[in-house]
Amino acid sequence: MEASQGLDSGLCRFTFILLAKLRRLFWAGLIMEPLQQQIRVSFSYPVHFTRHLFALHNPLLKDILGEGGPDFPKKLLVVIDRGVYRHHPDLIADLETYSRQSRDYCVLADAPLLLAGGEDVKNDPRALTRVHQAINGAGLCRHSYIMAVGGGAVIDLVGLAAATAHRGIRLIRVPTTVMAQADASIGVKNGINAFGKKNFIGTFAPPFAVINDCHFLTTLEPRDWISGVAEAVKVALIKDASFFAFLEEHAAALAERRLDLMQQTIYHCAELHLNHIANYGDPFEFGTSRPLDFGHWAAHKLEQLSGFTLRHGEAVAVGLALDATYSCLAGMLTQSQWHRIVTLLEHLGLPAYAPELEEDDLLEGLTEFREHLGGRLTIMLLQAIGQGREVHAMDPAMVRDGVGLLRERALGRHLEVRVR
Amino acid sequence: MEASQGLDSGLCRFTFILLAKLRRLFWAGLIMEPLQQQIRVSFSYPVHFTRHLFALHNPLLKDILGEGGPDFPKKLLVVIDRGVYRHHPDLIADLETYSRQSRDYCVLADAPLLLAGGEDVKNDPRALTRVHQAINGAGLCRHSYIMAVGGGAVIDLVGLAAATAHRGIRLIRVPTTVMAQADASIGVKNGINAFGKKNFIGTFAPPFAVINDCHFLTTLEPRDWISGVAEAVKVALIKDASFFAFLEEHAAALAERRLDLMQQTIYHCAELHLNHIANYGDPFEFGTSRPLDFGHWAAHKLEQLSGFTLRHGEAVAVGLALDATYSCLAGMLTQSQWHRIVTLLEHLGLPAYAPELEEDDLLEGLTEFREHLGGRLTIMLLQAIGQGREVHAMDPAMVRDGVGLLRERALGRHLEVRVR
Repeated sequence: MEASQGLDSGLCRFTFILLAKLRRLFWAGLIMEPLQQQIRVSFSYPVHFTRHLFALHNPLLKDILGEGGPDFPKKLLVVIDRGVYRHHPDLIADLETYSRQSRDYCVLADAPLLLAGGEDVKNDPRALTRVHQAINGAGLCRHSYIMAVGGGAVIDLVGLAAATAHRGIRLIRVPTTVMAQADASIGVKNGINAFGKKNFIGTFAPPFAVINDCHFLTTLEPRDWISGVAEAVKVALIKDASFFAFLEEHAAALAERRLDLMQQTIYHCAELHLNHIANYGDPFEFGTSRPLDFGHWAAHKLEQLSGFTLRHGEAVAVGLALDATYSCLAGMLTQSQWHRIVTLLEHLGLPAYAPELEEDDLLEGLTEFREHLGGRLTIMLLQAIGQGREVHAMDPAMVRDGVGLLRERALGRHLEVRVR
Repeated sequence: MEASQGLDSGLCRFTFILLAKLRRLFWAGLIMEPLQQQIRVSFSYPVHFTRHLFALHNPLLKDILGEGGPDFPKKLLVVIDRGVYRHHPDLIADLETYSRQSRDYCVLADAPLLLAGGEDVKNDPRALTRVHQAINGAGLCRHSYIMAVGGGAVIDLVGLAAATAHRGIRLIRVPTTVMAQADASIGVKNGINAFGKKNFIGTFAPPFAVINDCHFLTTLEPRDWISGVAEAVKVALIKDASFFAFLEEHAAALAERRLDLMQQTIYHCAELHLNHIANYGDPFEFGTSRPLDFGHWAAHKLEQLSGFTLRHGEAVAVGLALDATYSCLAGMLTQSQWHRIVTLLEHLGLPAYAPELEEDDLLEGLTEFREHLGGRLTIMLLQAIGQGREVHAMDPAMVRDGVGLLRERALGRHLEVRVR
């Protein structure tokens, strides 16, 4: 009896599987197995550190262009951030002299294109068209070079234009701000804003090379000088306790514009970012996790709520102060480590509080962050200095408590953080 | 004496190298070695073959969506080629019924967006903005799906919009023409036209999945039915002599719309294309060589010269006839093989000649082809059926001789091809 039941149920399962297979075969046009495509693509690019890139005897740029394969001279189109040009009025003349001397390697395909810098250039859809027009006008091909000299916004815009013209022209990024040299312009992303959303339109497109020229940092306004260091604090917090200690040790000197220390900070920050992108296993962000965006859910929203009067780095400083406070309130981070984090921001001259934190819309930042990343909400918090931990929800009441603590601290009232 | 000379020259070389190193160190901000970034990205996607994709009991689409990770139901936005919708007026109702039945997996994020098909949609920059608007309006994220149902042009456009919104939304391509199912919509490229240049703006972006539904082929106009077979002839010529023999054997039946033979043709053609992309070593085309573009330098120009009255496949047929003739004139291909090639085109009902071949501008096609690929001109020719060979120059006089031979042949005068 039992054997017969076993036989029956076996037959039944067999028939079911057979029918399911037949049904699939029927809908699959009878016998056509799907073809499975597997593609592996390798990208490689250097991040160089130099000063006076266009000085006649600096061989770096010539060396880089010389690595681009045969068929010299190649065409080069340069796009310059107008803000940088204002502080470096000899830039175009230097570039032209340099390129005349390097004419075996490359020729300027056209006069440099000047673009207004800052977030506005990413909000103007005509700016993308202007760069595409310049690429077309100069007759660039996929083996030509386009060089973007400027802050993160200009580099993001030119990067998108370069990635989409002829499906990709070689991009040389010359970031001129601390933020762009340390973080924004050394990775694999580009983008412009649309529909009021930051980086709504963009691609993943590794550059041909990045050149960090520290001379450009000397003319930065004080807020731009220090705000980029927020990304160094961020990456130290989630990745590297000894780098955090380095920043603590040199906070005052960094705030006082010591160029050598800033270069070291940028170098180590860039190294940590590049290692993460290469080794974390998801350089083009197919998953839902984005650890390097620690503190950024609030930062993006704060920038927007401030009408972009907050610098990105300032917003990141406030955002990571908030998420560190939240981590402490949630019992993940010790109070003494929380204290070190907020103190470091204060010593650097970075804000740990902004009035925009009080706005009701702040928590919309979580929704927008989730929508941009896709899939499940994933937020990086801290369980120690140098060690992040991901969570999938945040308690709105605890976020508000965190805001309250940062407000009190900003008012000079140094309260205790108590675990709820 | 000799030893001393050796010492001198050794010292001299040592000093020279030391000075060069010091110069580099000086410009490199003293001690900062460049950081070298290495990124490897893997892409994987299936190409499915089915019929009646939206029939209620066809499990394929549900299976595909079920592979997209957790967090169901996911959002799905569908863009449909108006030309396809005209021939399949039940499409939207079928889709809505199917999605109601699959609501555990996905929900339609909005009503389907209808777009005019054909090359015009790639010439209209507002079309890209419309798809971006639809993506934003539907609140899609990087883990949502956008499905493009239509010919190659609509799929190219939607592919670009999907690749650039949030830096990439999952794209399911449902190509509805022979050309798109066999070639254009199974690879890793997308694009729109700009500045009068084909695919001037685009990216490399592998899809999430491709679904070839043969039912859509039944309503193709005669010219669209057969013109896509030109890509099968092309890939057979450069890769697979036995596939060429298959096409010779079934040319008449293909011309008479035997669906099962067309499916086999598409399947094998797709397989050859996918294998090439995956295994040729340059899926994102960083080099100068593009073997799959055999016959295409002339084809792109002929399309343009005809004001796009020639179908892409028809232009490819003429283009590969021209390059086969050139290969024969250059002594690379035997006359009997050349004869088989032109005869196959004739039996399929594909043109081997077009009056646009006579225009002086034809040879500009070589320049434009080089500019789009970049670097050195690289043209695929034939040394046998099933075996391509790349060259880096073409003789204009020999191209004109080839045109003359194809003209004579089209007029019914079957002349000999003599090696020059």
